[in-house]
Amino acid sequence: MKYDVLGIGNAIVDILTHVNDDFLKSQNLDKGMMTLVDEEAAAALYDQIGQAVECSGGSAANTIAGLASLGSKTAYIGKIRDDQLGNVFGHDIRALGVHFDTETASEGPSTAFCQVLVTDDAERTMCTYLGACVNLGPNDVDENLVKNSAITYLEGYLWDPEAAKQAFLKAMDIAHDAGNRIALSLSDPFCVVRHKEEFLDLVKNHVDILFANEEELLTLYDTQDINDALQKVGQDCEIAAVTLGAKGCAVVNGSDIIEINGVPVSNLVDTTGAGDLFAAGFLHGLTQGADLATCGKMGNVVAGHIITHMGPRPDIDLAAYLAENT
Amino acid sequence: MKYDVLGIGNAIVDILTHVNDDFLKSQNLDKGMMTLVDEEAAAALYDQIGQAVECSGGSAANTIAGLASLGSKTAYIGKIRDDQLGNVFGHDIRALGVHFDTETASEGPSTAFCQVLVTDDAERTMCTYLGACVNLGPNDVDENLVKNSAITYLEGYLWDPEAAKQAFLKAMDIAHDAGNRIALSLSDPFCVVRHKEEFLDLVKNHVDILFANEEELLTLYDTQDINDALQKVGQDCEIAAVTLGAKGCAVVNGSDIIEINGVPVSNLVDTTGAGDLFAAGFLHGLTQGADLATCGKMGNVVAGHIITHMGPRPDIDLAAYLAENT
Repeated sequence: MKYDVLGIGNAIVDILTHVNDDFLKSQNLDKGMMTLVDEEAAAALYDQIGQAVECSGGSAANTIAGLASLGSKTAYIGKIRDDQLGNVFGHDIRALGVHFDTETASEGPSTAFCQVLVTDDAERTMCTYLGACVNLGPNDVDENLVKNSAITYLEGYLWDPEAAKQAFLKAMDIAHDAGNRIALSLSDPFCVVRHKEEFLDLVKNHVDILFANEEELLTLYDTQDINDALQKVGQDCEIAAVTLGAKGCAVVNGSDIIEINGVPVSNLVDTTGAGDLFAAGFLHGLTQGADLATCGKMGNVVAGHIITHMGPRPDIDLAAYLAENT
Repeated sequence: MKYDVLGIGNAIVDILTHVNDDFLKSQNLDKGMMTLVDEEAAAALYDQIGQAVECSGGSAANTIAGLASLGSKTAYIGKIRDDQLGNVFGHDIRALGVHFDTETASEGPSTAFCQVLVTDDAERTMCTYLGACVNLGPNDVDENLVKNSAITYLEGYLWDPEAAKQAFLKAMDIAHDAGNRIALSLSDPFCVVRHKEEFLDLVKNHVDILFANEEELLTLYDTQDINDALQKVGQDCEIAAVTLGAKGCAVVNGSDIIEINGVPVSNLVDTTGAGDLFAAGFLHGLTQGADLATCGKMGNVVAGHIITHMGPRPDIDLAAYLAENT
């Protein structure tokens, strides 16, 4: 297979800054969540935040960047515009050796950006302007790319822009027709709320590998009991990898539930990208033929690194880091 | 006085990435130096570097950002375009409370950017595309702003774009006519080579406070003997603050040469902005009425902080940091 993992997602540049809890309250932002904002609201928020740092982001793109840094063969589909932020996004992902040739939009909204507000407890609260991402559609899904990727990894956030959802469905069909696997990340509790029925259908009928955090899974199964949710997801899809914050993760395979302890982190800085990089470590293990417990461990180790620095992209050679820490 | 310090400089967004020494050699780049490149060469270099992080930069702008974080009243003059990087630059400097209202260019070259290549020894090597900075001219120098600033701080880099040099000279005349002081940073050894005779004339006849590092000062006075250079600069301008790397700095006032030990730094990450933030600490002390030895110490402390993280802008409250560390 030419590619281990193909990621499809919203191509976003992050704008990272520090804020305090009072600021989140003053802006009516739900801490830890991702809120979609229009261009005007994004600009109004930007006027309120302090100086920032920009770097490439996007959930699936972060996972693919992590996979590339780990040594997996990767490709990405996402929509940028021909503007400066789009240039940054395209540069950064290609610089990691990721195949990325989705047609760049030459008109319409600007490249998407996400204002990532990091509080002193290292939690991140996000406001996303989807911009050019709304123009990702089925035509952007290259059939050969999906056929030649062992796993196609989709972010739940794709369900927000309507055309991207169609692209998602097209990719899913092609992958399954080719006998390849589909992985889905539930992305965000609010995203699950927005698309719950459809996500449940996806998980039951179309997804082979599911990624979620505790809150997302509880929301999906409408329960407060994580064991209940873990049992249910075991009946619904082949593999589910559920992150449990500092506790680590649980990997569900049918009726088997494997709990894997988290990695102690002494210098927690910013949790942005923790879930994305967990998925990178897990999928890297899976495509390398590791058992599920090892995949979970690899996810924990990689996620444990990304939260020690600002931003969702690794700034070290993750392959070397993983080798030293497993 | 309404402002303690007005900075005038090239308004630049930095693109920070890690490289190794072999890469610098392969690109024929002089380590530790700033090289000017045209748009084509900048794009060619960008194709070669790895993933990066973007943040506002520009030498004088970094100094002003540091001063604002220290609590000084500050203003800035520099030229951006109405593009995404310009928006980032304008946001970041205004977010610190800096008065910045230079007219934004609505045509012509894009906002300037500098590819900052950081090696494992934390040294930075820079490639700058001046972009919109070439359109900064005398009309951008607001007479009232200069008159209302106790110190006008100019970067030597302004001598590169011709119109900016004229803006520099206009600001200098206004400041002196108003009885205010002019500070100059020599910026870079290559910059001194390019403009040596003119810089010597400035230092002898127009500059009240000079900032330089060892290599820049040696280049200016065409000597290998730092004591010789320090004595000469003492005859040429009122105050000279000369950074000596890890050794700290020397502050020259006439025939007095005060050496101030550097601050031990245990976690050196990236020297980008060290000189700029030294100037911030020094000038903050000066405008607060501190003696020259204290000003030098403040410069050392602030510079000692900025080199512990990637990028030239402080990501903490420098006033609190300075209070804890002096």
